[in-house]
Amino acid sequence: MSKAGTSKRAGEDINKQQKKIKNIDEVLKLVKKLAEQGRKNTTAERSLAELDLAHSVREVVDKDADAVLDEIETTMLEVAQSILAGNGYSFDIPSRAKGNQLYVPELDRIVLKDTVSKRPFASSQACRKTAITTRILGLVHELCNKQINVTKRDLFYTDVKLFEDQRESDAVLDDLSCMLGCTRSSLHVVASEKGVVVGRPPFTGGLVASEKGVVVGRLTFTEDGDHIDCRRMGVGGKAIPPNISKVSNIASDALFILLVEKDAAFMRLAEDRFYNDYPSIIITAKGQPDVATRLFLRKLKLSLKIPVLALVDSDPYGLKILSVYMKGSMNMSYDSSNLTTPDIKWLGVRPSDLDRFNIPAQCRLAMTDEDLKTGRKLLEEDFIKANPAWVAELELMLKKKEKAEIQALSSFGFQYLSQVYLPLKLQEGDWI
Amino acid sequence: MSKAGTSKRAGEDINKQQKKIKNIDEVLKLVKKLAEQGRKNTTAERSLAELDLAHSVREVVDKDADAVLDEIETTMLEVAQSILAGNGYSFDIPSRAKGNQLYVPELDRIVLKDTVSKRPFASSQACRKTAITTRILGLVHELCNKQINVTKRDLFYTDVKLFEDQRESDAVLDDLSCMLGCTRSSLHVVASEKGVVVGRPPFTGGLVASEKGVVVGRLTFTEDGDHIDCRRMGVGGKAIPPNISKVSNIASDALFILLVEKDAAFMRLAEDRFYNDYPSIIITAKGQPDVATRLFLRKLKLSLKIPVLALVDSDPYGLKILSVYMKGSMNMSYDSSNLTTPDIKWLGVRPSDLDRFNIPAQCRLAMTDEDLKTGRKLLEEDFIKANPAWVAELELMLKKKEKAEIQALSSFGFQYLSQVYLPLKLQEGDWI
Repeated sequence: MSKAGTSKRAGEDINKQQKKIKNIDEVLKLVKKLAEQGRKNTTAERSLAELDLAHSVREVVDKDADAVLDEIETTMLEVAQSILAGNGYSFDIPSRAKGNQLYVPELDRIVLKDTVSKRPFASSQACRKTAITTRILGLVHELCNKQINVTKRDLFYTDVKLFEDQRESDAVLDDLSCMLGCTRSSLHVVASEKGVVVGRPPFTGGLVASEKGVVVGRLTFTEDGDHIDCRRMGVGGKAIPPNISKVSNIASDALFILLVEKDAAFMRLAEDRFYNDYPSIIITAKGQPDVATRLFLRKLKLSLKIPVLALVDSDPYGLKILSVYMKGSMNMSYDSSNLTTPDIKWLGVRPSDLDRFNIPAQCRLAMTDEDLKTGRKLLEEDFIKANPAWVAELELMLKKKEKAEIQALSSFGFQYLSQVYLPLKLQEGDWI
Repeated sequence: MSKAGTSKRAGEDINKQQKKIKNIDEVLKLVKKLAEQGRKNTTAERSLAELDLAHSVREVVDKDADAVLDEIETTMLEVAQSILAGNGYSFDIPSRAKGNQLYVPELDRIVLKDTVSKRPFASSQACRKTAITTRILGLVHELCNKQINVTKRDLFYTDVKLFEDQRESDAVLDDLSCMLGCTRSSLHVVASEKGVVVGRPPFTGGLVASEKGVVVGRLTFTEDGDHIDCRRMGVGGKAIPPNISKVSNIASDALFILLVEKDAAFMRLAEDRFYNDYPSIIITAKGQPDVATRLFLRKLKLSLKIPVLALVDSDPYGLKILSVYMKGSMNMSYDSSNLTTPDIKWLGVRPSDLDRFNIPAQCRLAMTDEDLKTGRKLLEEDFIKANPAWVAELELMLKKKEKAEIQALSSFGFQYLSQVYLPLKLQEGDWI
């Protein structure tokens, strides 16, 4: 029945492919090897402190509520002492300007150099901004104290009279994150749901709609005191929490994380309980990932030390999505190490798969001029250039001027993805 | 601390409001009464068969996989007999044209009258469409047989050569749903994630991004064999499944369903475990609801017979979202009874709340010309006109030319929504 609708020849192809699939242990052999390599390779965990850097640099890290409270209270104690000493007060705000950013190749991320600007209260120019900074310090103190999370928009509404424009409170929030040396999510403020700024050149990006992520598979964790078992989350899955700080006790016997671009593919794999046969965790953000999904993926990868394999459409947009997971956006550079998952393997659907798996001509789509332009710009991106196999695939795409969606695999039957395509890919270690 | 940032007077207001809130039993008194009324009032469940209609009408209902298989097999048996008798074959496709639609005021929904068009195979005009119909019947048979769900896009990819354009396979799917008398989700095909066509005039709408829904609260159900407990879903909640047919054994001790427009408000209520004190189920689709969320809400309301209270922004867009839940889109009219939840109470944030709760002037936003236009058009909508209290609120909004987001309540403290605003609203039975 699954062969219906494909020509006889295609039917024979599928049969041949199916016969190639060995038993599950054999299929998983190369994935296991990859996972072992990952456990040995600990470069990703090297901290800034271990590197001998010419500049004194500043990084932001995840801190728990108590640590943030300590930082805020120390800061305000200094403020009080300064006022009592008759000197008024000011804050030292690290500059987030481009000139103050430093790329650290050893860590493959951007940190801030030591330029700091004074923000004095007794200055007609800085007074308002200093007041906003003080106010937001107080609000963040309240949030950490109560252990609750709010959105940037909630924070703005708390004092519209003072903040006037949400961009003001958002900017000061970023200042505080640098000043206190902690990530924005450590401040207990999450991005609003409306969208995220994505991309770095050439992804001029702007605000695009971002979707919330969902997860199913061989994973258990504690979320705000609740025990979550992702093996028993039906086909809809568990919604990824907006605030990663609520997630703890991550445990899993999965061999890999499968990062899926499309909701349809996620539904197929969840419904077929793909993770039962092939021990895995399946995540999708249905397109452009929001900050919460990126934080969640990173946390899983660092805790479990298992490879991340990506299943995206064979088009430039699929690669752009991977770039968001891998590189983040320029705007967030100082925070980037806490958002990105650098080592993602491109499993499929890759341009070379189109011929290899005989995707019918009518299921392939012609690339538009916009696609070709985006594709050519991607060729100049560092994260592509760093991987010759990715360059070769992208060049093939641009040469053939063809793209294909993950769903194109449905032309071989609804369950071809979970029963043939993915097992074959895993067995052959066909990721790059 | 929660009073910080509001003036002294506002602080006193909040204190006064907080003192008004009685113990939980008192707060819930009117909600309990509303729930009892709902259980007695069974009009919503009246079926077409019980009405004495002049026309012979056709409705589509939810059917399980076995019933759909029966329908398909009966149809194909007739086809085979017709072919064997030397008559070739054709399908009888109910017309979905406007002229064939009938509004049934007793049920407040649209059904199809008895106009049917023949789709013969032996016709140069209809041949291709008949072939597509036959092919999709076969594919749906496969889906029901295997008990798996796919998206419209997956279905299209199964035979691009024949279907040529996804609009063709989508349209035939709707034909089949009418022909077999079952909802599209009964055919085991779900809408793709890219968006839904929303609105009926005046919401010319078009394709807009729709978000997937999430749920937390006093609710347990079985999803594809997994026991789901929505009281233990952290702050992220459970993702609502794409296919309602996988949901069974719905159980709850909630007194009401709280339908929330914004993700931020959902997060606040989930984190504060609002449903522990006020027995409820909290649902959001983060804006425009997708089909799955609408199906889920309807199923909950029908199974549990508890009221649905809505918390949306005080602007025309908030009402448009309610209209999608309550009325659905014109395109889906014949399927509407299976998608809509007619009796939704508008709890807040209502235009009259702005003065009643002293929302500060700087937290109110001026309505744009577009807002005013949309608002005026809403006044002509049946679902608004049917409720004089809604008309009065909308007229107030248009007179004051002011709108406000749910988050504006944060100006009284981050937890004002869950600790003051909602309890007061419930206690006073302040829904319309």
